[in-house]
Amino acid sequence: MSDTVKYLLDESRIPKAWYNIQADLPKPPAPVLHPGTGQPIGPDDLAPLFPMALIQQEVSTEREIEIPEPVRDIYRQWRPSPLFRARRLEKALDTPARIYYKYEGVSPAGSHKPNTAVAQAFYNREAGIKRISTETGAGQWGSSLAFAGALFDIEVKVFMVRVSYNQKPYRRALMESYGATCIPSPSPETQSGRAILEKRPDHPGSLGIAISEAVEVAAQSDDTKYALGSVLNHVLLHQSVVGLEAMAQLELADDYPDVIVGCTGGGSNFAGIAFPFLGEQLRGGRKVRIVAVEPAACPSLTRGRFAYDFGDTAHLTPLVKMHTLGSTFTPPGFHAGGLRYHGMAPLVSHVMDLGLIEAVGLHQKPCFAAGVQLARTEGILPAPEANHALKGAIDEALKCKEEGVSRAILFNLCGHGHFDMQAYMDYFADKLVDQDYDPDELAMALAGLPSVAA
Amino acid sequence: MSDTVKYLLDESRIPKAWYNIQADLPKPPAPVLHPGTGQPIGPDDLAPLFPMALIQQEVSTEREIEIPEPVRDIYRQWRPSPLFRARRLEKALDTPARIYYKYEGVSPAGSHKPNTAVAQAFYNREAGIKRISTETGAGQWGSSLAFAGALFDIEVKVFMVRVSYNQKPYRRALMESYGATCIPSPSPETQSGRAILEKRPDHPGSLGIAISEAVEVAAQSDDTKYALGSVLNHVLLHQSVVGLEAMAQLELADDYPDVIVGCTGGGSNFAGIAFPFLGEQLRGGRKVRIVAVEPAACPSLTRGRFAYDFGDTAHLTPLVKMHTLGSTFTPPGFHAGGLRYHGMAPLVSHVMDLGLIEAVGLHQKPCFAAGVQLARTEGILPAPEANHALKGAIDEALKCKEEGVSRAILFNLCGHGHFDMQAYMDYFADKLVDQDYDPDELAMALAGLPSVAA
Repeated sequence: MSDTVKYLLDESRIPKAWYNIQADLPKPPAPVLHPGTGQPIGPDDLAPLFPMALIQQEVSTEREIEIPEPVRDIYRQWRPSPLFRARRLEKALDTPARIYYKYEGVSPAGSHKPNTAVAQAFYNREAGIKRISTETGAGQWGSSLAFAGALFDIEVKVFMVRVSYNQKPYRRALMESYGATCIPSPSPETQSGRAILEKRPDHPGSLGIAISEAVEVAAQSDDTKYALGSVLNHVLLHQSVVGLEAMAQLELADDYPDVIVGCTGGGSNFAGIAFPFLGEQLRGGRKVRIVAVEPAACPSLTRGRFAYDFGDTAHLTPLVKMHTLGSTFTPPGFHAGGLRYHGMAPLVSHVMDLGLIEAVGLHQKPCFAAGVQLARTEGILPAPEANHALKGAIDEALKCKEEGVSRAILFNLCGHGHFDMQAYMDYFADKLVDQDYDPDELAMALAGLPSVAA
Repeated sequence: MSDTVKYLLDESRIPKAWYNIQADLPKPPAPVLHPGTGQPIGPDDLAPLFPMALIQQEVSTEREIEIPEPVRDIYRQWRPSPLFRARRLEKALDTPARIYYKYEGVSPAGSHKPNTAVAQAFYNREAGIKRISTETGAGQWGSSLAFAGALFDIEVKVFMVRVSYNQKPYRRALMESYGATCIPSPSPETQSGRAILEKRPDHPGSLGIAISEAVEVAAQSDDTKYALGSVLNHVLLHQSVVGLEAMAQLELADDYPDVIVGCTGGGSNFAGIAFPFLGEQLRGGRKVRIVAVEPAACPSLTRGRFAYDFGDTAHLTPLVKMHTLGSTFTPPGFHAGGLRYHGMAPLVSHVMDLGLIEAVGLHQKPCFAAGVQLARTEGILPAPEANHALKGAIDEALKCKEEGVSRAILFNLCGHGHFDMQAYMDYFADKLVDQDYDPDELAMALAGLPSVAA
């Protein structure tokens, strides 16, 4: 058999509808609460931040939500993305496992993020919105929304966590190439930013602070809305194209996953690949083990509390029930910037709480080693975030070897590492450390959770 | 009609044979000469540097040369690459032209270079070679050969022009991720390198010097061969997959190019897209205008002499007849490192001499402006080299607008710019200058050409 096994779909096979797991859940997720009243919020409460079409998707329990033709039209540029069988990696591991990976690095921004960026830009454009504000950590999301904004003629303003803004000037340059404005956060442009800068002018920033700034900017202007790159239900919905395509591609391979592995920061690439398969299972189809891999240093699923919390630091967002480390929690420095968030998508948290998925925390060094192994076997150098999924998949494949059984393992290679070469240089120079989070800080952050009856 | 128009081919449509223009030339190119004797060299003279299969391809006049199955197998990872119709760019230019681009940035190394790297690694492996030495400027070629070496289990040693080695640590990190060794050139590892360092310990290096070093290393060891990423006939041959696929894809579009545009450094991506169409014309098919775009600051086709010259600085290579600026010519600093070579592929030079192609020299700033326009319309940020082809195509499209005619323009978008963000940052900061070459230096370099009867 050939060593390069790629399952391609014709562009007519780009899904025509997103899959919404809310239709198949045995129990609905906890409602989103207004931080002032503690009562469930309605669509109008969210209207200052999002166009109504996205708010409706946020709460919809329809199983299929049609993908608008202009969105499918842009998906066409890189979708259907390829599914590969990693035969060279299997040989290197000497495993009987069948390892498949869905490769989302083929998008113009290099990750899965444009799947939702394009959809969000489209609905904002339909609603007559002129500007979108957002935040970004490592820059994957910011550059994806900048790309989508360029295509729909929407101004994009990105608050980029200051430490990343300084460390990753190339991601910033990519956003600017697409025409977006990129501002280091905390910034003097917002009340939230100014409040923090007053206390500490050299504050390195955090995703939670950048969210506060972006939300504040959107809330203050009628023609400006806010966009989030993960966590929210509608974002997970848009990412379902990943799993839907993978399902069709595995049909071509005449195979079905026994295990699905994804990395989790906010949860969207994980849900994207896993939820369509989980939905099958919930509707009485074949059972599949689903493993979420998170950084051991930012372990919301494995060490966080399933509780109501704010999505941001300034507490401008509604309260959502999720696995959280507390909105003040600051993880130690590690390179997978896209996985450095204190919370987890409510829908991912909910299926975790229902026992439908597992989670594991990994340190970064073995994940980088896995990334280098993939480069040398499969030719693709993954993003540090994706290395977590890869390492999780390799661990599953090594279990197959130990047990002498062949299982089909599917993982989401959610982005390439071409903008993360400094991290690889640090890895090669043995400068990376596998720091643990500070348990005292976690305890303090959890003690500061808002008191809301769950 | 949809704005995203992608012409995909099934992987069964990856070409089964490379196209060799030497079969269709009205007049054979001038022979390669031995620098000592001034006589045409034979296969044995090249045997220390290349495996015999590649030497045979270098001199073959067969029209079709079968692509070995293990090479096609690896091509399958990213080939057939997509052909896009640039409808958003057409709208932005308000041109009646039909602009198509072949996108080679989808390869694991991000450019067209793996097309030949994989083939060269395969033939070396077949010949039992354990190590390949090569040079690289910007790093596109070095990282492509590193990728191919990893897949065929061949050690790759890359001499990287020192100024690029220091300026582009991320390209170097990519090579190292693939397992290659990367050495700044001039280096103390070779006689050629030491000779230069003695005179000037801080010498910034040049492609010509790095070639000398790589050739020297290969010539001294039986299990080490040399590989070149452009210029040579067999490299251009391997790149013909680009044009062959584009031809099939334009058939799907029910169109045929009136103009083909490619950028030229050594000439391989240009020949890759153009020669299959030129071959059609030479066999009595439809005539097509073919435009080579080179940097105005390194203008071998437009300002060089068509003469015998060395490929390297230390004069270790055979003499080839080509458009050359002289092997001592050093272009001023500009960002398209892949186009900074003093010579031009002999086959490209030959068809230029026969009047079958045109050439134009462009400065870098308008090319970067074109790259930003492509990012904001088509979503892809090109490499600085590819920006030259893009700008050439835009100029042709604007001519169509002026003349009120619709022509089909095909260009090769030979790589993405994700490793070139510093250049874009400099462009945005208005730090780029459009320097001209020094006419005195050119005159001196041309005066130093070896005296060989042409």
